[in-house]
Amino acid sequence: MNANHTSRLEDIVGKAHCLTDAADMTAFTTDYRKIYVGRALAVVRPCGTRQVSDVMRYCYEHDIAVVPQGGNTSLLGGAVPVVEQADGPCIVLNLARLNQVVSIDPVNDTMLVQAGVTLNAAREAAEGVQRLFPLRIGSEGSCQIGGNLSTNAGGTAVLRYGNMRDLVLGLEVVLPGGEIWDGLRALRKDNTGYDLKHVFIGSEGTLGIITAAVLKLFPQPRSTSTALLATDGPESAIALLGFLKTRLGSDITAFELISAPALALVREHLHDEEPLFTEAHDWMVLVEAISNAPQADADEHFQTALSDAYGTGLVLDALLASSEAHARRLWRLREEISDAQTRTGGSVRCDISVPLSAIPEFVLEASARVLEIEPKTRMVIYGHMGDGNVHFNPLRPADVTAETFMAAVATKITRIVDDLAMSVQGSISAEHGVGVAKRDELLQVKSETELLTCWRIKRALDPKNLMNPGKVLPDLQSVLRSAA
Amino acid sequence: MNANHTSRLEDIVGKAHCLTDAADMTAFTTDYRKIYVGRALAVVRPCGTRQVSDVMRYCYEHDIAVVPQGGNTSLLGGAVPVVEQADGPCIVLNLARLNQVVSIDPVNDTMLVQAGVTLNAAREAAEGVQRLFPLRIGSEGSCQIGGNLSTNAGGTAVLRYGNMRDLVLGLEVVLPGGEIWDGLRALRKDNTGYDLKHVFIGSEGTLGIITAAVLKLFPQPRSTSTALLATDGPESAIALLGFLKTRLGSDITAFELISAPALALVREHLHDEEPLFTEAHDWMVLVEAISNAPQADADEHFQTALSDAYGTGLVLDALLASSEAHARRLWRLREEISDAQTRTGGSVRCDISVPLSAIPEFVLEASARVLEIEPKTRMVIYGHMGDGNVHFNPLRPADVTAETFMAAVATKITRIVDDLAMSVQGSISAEHGVGVAKRDELLQVKSETELLTCWRIKRALDPKNLMNPGKVLPDLQSVLRSAA
Repeated sequence: MNANHTSRLEDIVGKAHCLTDAADMTAFTTDYRKIYVGRALAVVRPCGTRQVSDVMRYCYEHDIAVVPQGGNTSLLGGAVPVVEQADGPCIVLNLARLNQVVSIDPVNDTMLVQAGVTLNAAREAAEGVQRLFPLRIGSEGSCQIGGNLSTNAGGTAVLRYGNMRDLVLGLEVVLPGGEIWDGLRALRKDNTGYDLKHVFIGSEGTLGIITAAVLKLFPQPRSTSTALLATDGPESAIALLGFLKTRLGSDITAFELISAPALALVREHLHDEEPLFTEAHDWMVLVEAISNAPQADADEHFQTALSDAYGTGLVLDALLASSEAHARRLWRLREEISDAQTRTGGSVRCDISVPLSAIPEFVLEASARVLEIEPKTRMVIYGHMGDGNVHFNPLRPADVTAETFMAAVATKITRIVDDLAMSVQGSISAEHGVGVAKRDELLQVKSETELLTCWRIKRALDPKNLMNPGKVLPDLQSVLRSAA
Repeated sequence: MNANHTSRLEDIVGKAHCLTDAADMTAFTTDYRKIYVGRALAVVRPCGTRQVSDVMRYCYEHDIAVVPQGGNTSLLGGAVPVVEQADGPCIVLNLARLNQVVSIDPVNDTMLVQAGVTLNAAREAAEGVQRLFPLRIGSEGSCQIGGNLSTNAGGTAVLRYGNMRDLVLGLEVVLPGGEIWDGLRALRKDNTGYDLKHVFIGSEGTLGIITAAVLKLFPQPRSTSTALLATDGPESAIALLGFLKTRLGSDITAFELISAPALALVREHLHDEEPLFTEAHDWMVLVEAISNAPQADADEHFQTALSDAYGTGLVLDALLASSEAHARRLWRLREEISDAQTRTGGSVRCDISVPLSAIPEFVLEASARVLEIEPKTRMVIYGHMGDGNVHFNPLRPADVTAETFMAAVATKITRIVDDLAMSVQGSISAEHGVGVAKRDELLQVKSETELLTCWRIKRALDPKNLMNPGKVLPDLQSVLRSAA
């Protein structure tokens, strides 16, 4: 039976693009962090929307579950199969071959791309016509636009440009039964009924497969100013953000918090011994602002704002990027923190967000509570403070084994951090999504009304529950039980 | 039976807030343009979310349809009953008494408001803490936040700040059965499952009733520069926008096209005889840009950009606002065009959008075809060119009666304009929504797949079809027939 299925799928996409050998499939059925290892009948790699539709129709007719996959960079197991063999057959539908930048309209500031285009390729295509596609995340070399959309990717430029949801005007989606919805509009205003694209964005492939998108482009800023600042704590950092907004308005593109342990860790990792500040400080902020003024004028305006902030005590020391290369070096200190953790024994990764007004208390309180449980941890805290989004990642101490740490400490820390975030109306997953890792935690943090409403939509669009089953939504029976 | 219903509804909201007298109800059952006159069992005016929920639960249990209503400023009959008596009883649920600005968090740049707060009141509350709530539309004195959300309002600042959908972080919604969904999050990043708020925004009250919202606030710009420019046609205007983007980046807040007949009409209407340009021009553009620089520097930067545009021939003449009062006067020329039409015999109102690259050809071609049909019309063309959104409103000639015009000409013109917009992948309703007026036209412009997917969502959330019935979605049977 299964051999029959794979043979039919081969007919659709060609034998070379339907992987069925276990060894060939491993890279596609194992998640980025190598925590989730799933099984699939086949990894199917269609080359266009029509083939995606044919594969979907076949799977729908034969009750085969479909796991859509882009660059497979989910941190939460969202892009690999988790269904058990008992749940019926499943395939991975990998979008990598839908990798064309179809067209660019620089007058309309839009770009039509297929779902499998990598984020880097999309950014480069925009640069080719002197435009900016502003999404900026760590995995940009391998993550794909389809995955960015289905997870509503965030990153370091959200403060100015918004999340992925805000950067798209139109979608093409293949629905569970194989129908193709052509919603590839390139309009900034279109109020003709329900805006279906928002139903699919952020639904992590559980309602359909995004095959193409019309992305928004922006003018390239004339100047960019960057600085690494030292500040005495999260409260000063938030006050500093408020101060800078009065001076730089919405031109602040990034406002990234970095704790001293996070900075030390990344500097070890990069073997970076160049002096930064004359004294050691507990908290740093990486600030970036754009301007339409010439670089020298923009830098002067930026520097004056920072000097004035220094005058009020909100900034303790400042390192202004003197060149693009210097700015890139400062950005590396921020961007490499994630890898530095992985290479140094791993950490508990909490991706929370809270209202900005609640950040200072959240960071201090969560730190204190975590240190009570594990006094030897290094408090790797960093992230997009300007969005209220902090990566709160206590590092595994060198003398504790990974097994002990994950078994004994990680769950407790996650619980503390997530509970604290929820106590101030925050989110337990600011930008990484839900996948399978956080699915059941939604039972604690979402109301029955919300989960049931999501299930109503899920059943309406995917009545056979074949699309990326076991992801995002807690099992319906659990929802009903928790409500009872 | 009906008397029994109204008596029960009175029990919930109080007798004074449940209008049942025909004369009292007229203002609520007649639309803004006095085209749609509906009938209702009662106009119910609850004072809080709990009462809305009780009313909804009662109506759900008794199969009473509910028409949600904010400021009743829909141009398309979206906020008044259109169901026939034969369809069963219906009430208007007016949100005006939910008029509290509940809280403002200037650190988080957010504001929690009830649905019945007028747009003006929301803007003023933001100004009270030195913040900007940027939505700007003609009806801002009477339209309400709930209506702005349910229709995804647009207006003159979309180019810089986005539509209403982009200006909200969280919602509270009462679902058809009376359950309250509390989605009042104040987070800029939250990827914990389906983003339900986007399902309700723009659905014009057909899926539930928005009762409160968390709105995004922005820094107040330090400076604003405004100019009225003359240009030789839509093609130059689009090229000018591209030129200005290279100079002013995303700081252009408004780029509004005005045709010579539109300008002449509004000047007559305002009795404005102050000279504008030394010569008459066929096309004008009102441009506004914000800046973080001091006003004098911002004006100089703005003026230099305009001078350079003049040098290239894209601008034929320019009138820079020399003061705030002067800027307001220029803005009045744009803002009063809508009323000027109503006072001068009315016009065919087409609210289309197309990709910016298609605007020049669209405007010229549509004008030529309309003039073939009605050579005496004045081509009142204006609107948000920067968003690709043009109000294309041929005026009724003085010697043609309103009846003749509407019967013989208006439908033809609408058909021509909408067809042309669709031929370049545009929209037949850029910002005004669908309501009842454009509902059946969706059968022509939307695919069966899209309409059926919308209906799947509608049935999932409102299985009894009680929420604002007859609005937005063409009748399901018609959808299926048109597909067959």
